[in-house]
Parts: sequence; C-alpha cells; structure tokens
Amino acid sequence: MLVKQKAKYIQTLGQKKFRQQEGVFIAEGPKLVKELLEENKAAVKEIYALKDWIDENKKLLAKTEITEITAAELEKISQLSTSNKVLALVKQFETGKELAVRGKITLVLDCIQDPGNMGTIIRIADWFGVEQIVCSNDSADIYNPKVVQATMGSIARVKVFYSELKEWLAKQKDIRIYATMLEGQDVSTMKKLSEGIIIFGNESKGISDEILQLANVKITILRKRKAESLNAAVAAGIILSHIC
Amino acid sequence: MLVKQKAKYIQTLGQKKFRQQEGVFIAEGPKLVKELLEENKAAVKEIYALKDWIDENKKLLAKTEITEITAAELEKISQLSTSNKVLALVKQFETGKELAVRGKITLVLDCIQDPGNMGTIIRIADWFGVEQIVCSNDSADIYNPKVVQATMGSIARVKVFYSELKEWLAKQKDIRIYATMLEGQDVSTMKKLSEGIIIFGNESKGISDEILQLANVKITILRKRKAESLNAAVAAGIILSHIC
Repeated sequence: MLVKQKAKYIQTLGQKKFRQQEGVFIAEGPKLVKELLEENKAAVKEIYALKDWIDENKKLLAKTEITEITAAELEKISQLSTSNKVLALVKQFETGKELAVRGKITLVLDCIQDPGNMGTIIRIADWFGVEQIVCSNDSADIYNPKVVQATMGSIARVKVFYSELKEWLAKQKDIRIYATMLEGQDVSTMKKLSEGIIIFGNESKGISDEILQLANVKITILRKRKAESLNAAVAAGIILSHIC
Repeated sequence: MLVKQKAKYIQTLGQKKFRQQEGVFIAEGPKLVKELLEENKAAVKEIYALKDWIDENKKLLAKTEITEITAAELEKISQLSTSNKVLALVKQFETGKELAVRGKITLVLDCIQDPGNMGTIIRIADWFGVEQIVCSNDSADIYNPKVVQATMGSIARVKVFYSELKEWLAKQKDIRIYATMLEGQDVSTMKKLSEGIIIFGNESKGISDEILQLANVKITILRKRKAESLNAAVAAGIILSHIC
C-alpha cells in the first residue's frame, strides 16, 4: 500500500530542485528498472510495483525495499503518460570531482536542452563505448524523468558531469578538442580516434562562440542535398560511429 | 479574418481520413512554410498568417491565396502546442505509381510508427541525397502534422510511397536488398553504395520475418558496450552516413 505522504514525496521528485535536495531520481518501467538492478543494485533505494511484476522478479529483488501497490496507486505517482508496472527511487550516481580525459573519448554537450535528445545521446555514447560526458550547466538535467526514460538504462553506465564549460575546456591543454559544425573536415574521412574531446552544440543555435574558440578542429557531416540540419542526437550518433 | 466554417475544416485535417479525402496537409511555422514556398510553390494552396509575417514575406507570396488572421485565430487552428505565425494548407505530393530503384539508394521502412522518427528519417534521407522512401502501409502517415514538422521542409524533396512491402520487395529482382539488424556485417567496413534497397524495422520489434526473408545482406552498427538498442532515426543516420 502506498502511504499518502510517500505519494506526495515521489510526486515532488518530478522537479529538479527536490531531486537535487534528496539526491535521488525516478526510474520507471520493467526494462529500465531491471537494467538498473542488474547494473547498480546498491543505487536502487525503493521499488513500488504491481504484484505480478514483483512475483516475476523475485530473484532480482533480494535485499531491495519493495512496496506492493495497485495500478491506481502507480498511476498517481508515475511521471509517464501511461504507467508501466514498476517505479523505482534511485540514488543519483557519484561522478567524483575530477575526470581524466587522456586515452579516451569525452563528449561535451553545450546546452542540449531537449530531454529526449539528452537521453538519446547518453544511449548512443553507451553504444559506442564512450564513458563520460561533460554538460554545460544550462543543459537538460539527466535525472529529468524524460531523460532517464530515453537513456533506456544507459544512464547507469555513462558518467555525466555538469560544469562551467568554458573554464573546464580551457584547462584541457594537451588533448585535441573537436567541434561539430555545419562546416569543417568531413568526419567520414577521419581516422578512428583513441582520445579526444568532441563538442556538440545546442539544437538550434549550435556551439556558442566562446566555446568554439577553445576547439582545435572543426568537423562536419557532409551534406548531399538541401536538408536544413540534422537532429542533435542523430548527428552525435553519426560522428561517434565514424571516430569510435 | 477566419470564417468559422474554414476553421472547422482545418481542424478536421488533423485526422488522416480527412487529409486523404481532401488530398491536403497542414504545414506550420515560418521556416517550414518558407521552405515549401521556395521548393514547391504550386503545392501551397492557402496561407493563414499574422500581419507581420505577411509583411515580411511579401515577395515570396505573389499569387498565393493569403488570409490575414489574429494570433487568437491561429491558436484555434494550429496543431502545434504553441502556434507560430503562419499555417499553410498544402497539396499532398504526387509520387506516381512506379518507382525506379536502379542506380540509386531506396529506403524501406517496415512499420516505423513514431511520427518524430518518421519525420527525422525523411530529413536524414534528404541530407544524404536519398530521393525515395517506401513505407509499409502500417507506418506513420507522412502528412501527420508531427511528421511534417519533424521533416523541417525535407518533406518537399523526398518522395515517399506507401506499399504492401512484401509484394513490392518480392518484385525487386536484380538489386541488392540490405536489412539493418542487431547482428550482421559491420556497416563501417562496407564500401559506399551506388544502388541498393536498405530496410529499417519497427522501433521495438525490428524488421518482420516475412520482410527479412527477402533481404540479401544483413548489416549492423557495431556495438562497443551494453546499450540495449539505438533509436531508429539515429540508426538510419549512421547507416546512411557510411554507405551514401
């Protein structure tokens, strides 16, 4: 049974302010919750689920705090348009303060604002083995329920940092910084990279000027016809598929 | 001024049944409408716009039927969550009955259902110079306002056919048919193609078995880590960036 006070508490976690204060986020649906349990069980603090889901997942759930609730109760606390069997409260991941950039690919997101794009980019990074992403502070919050959903579980495997981008980039001295643009070197002619920082810009404005100045190389996806632009996540997928 | 009867008529075009009956679709927003006017002016039947948009675009609008309306009137007929200066009624494009596949790349979409994905794939096709797409009859309608919006104008440059896929594919004898899958030949090792049919499957179920049997080659995007899948539009972008 779901206590009223708890329902209220979960609803507040739709807001960034409360998520940050509590250090937790909401994950929903059998696929995502199962992946989090398999990947990082210690982070899953509480589970609210329908009886049949609990019965089916007994093995996975040992030592996890579970509350059996009704479909109507789940509907009340769900952030999805259609609730889906299970909702988990998960501890926000610790990223540590410093991140190392040598010997690996690091993505930088300069003001990616659409939660769907943000989540999809995390999923793409995971697919291509990219371990870390640095976002400008004005990018979408990765713990926004829409972002969490769009990552399809990849949120548990990719480290995401938020930072004053300009300051952070200025400190990265001995590594190449690539800016993805509408003009630049054709990415399909580039060799695979073993290390580097790849910057992707805002959905409509692209990379801001002050960030662009810190890049060493401009790269692009060659356009054959008149299409105005590519979706930010599609562009990230294409670039990573060529250089990773 | 917007006559009540006309407002009602435009609202009905949110439904596929009425769009088909009338042979028209709705396009909204300055960017999209401008692109349609530049690309295929004859197809733009009627424009409903705010005074300032009409004043700014006088040159483009010669010989087009224009009705000046208020922001409140536009709000009433808009299919967007926030209406945006101009709405056009556009004739659905004629595709002709037969399409030639020799000497070019043809995309085949087997039940792509999300309007955002459908629109984004049309935009990607345009970017990489793909001229035609064949969709299964159960795919999203390209004249759905969300699809039109997501194409960002590319809808005017890419021909989209709907067909009984199995029958249509069975007739394509002398051309290679590629199926994009979770396993197959790594697309990054393939040569550029000058012709071929590339099949993309449904967002969760992939390509149906009966369609898969008609393919000659299975191709894939190599996965480095555990991410469960790639978004359908992202996968299309990556595949086309390697073979086009």
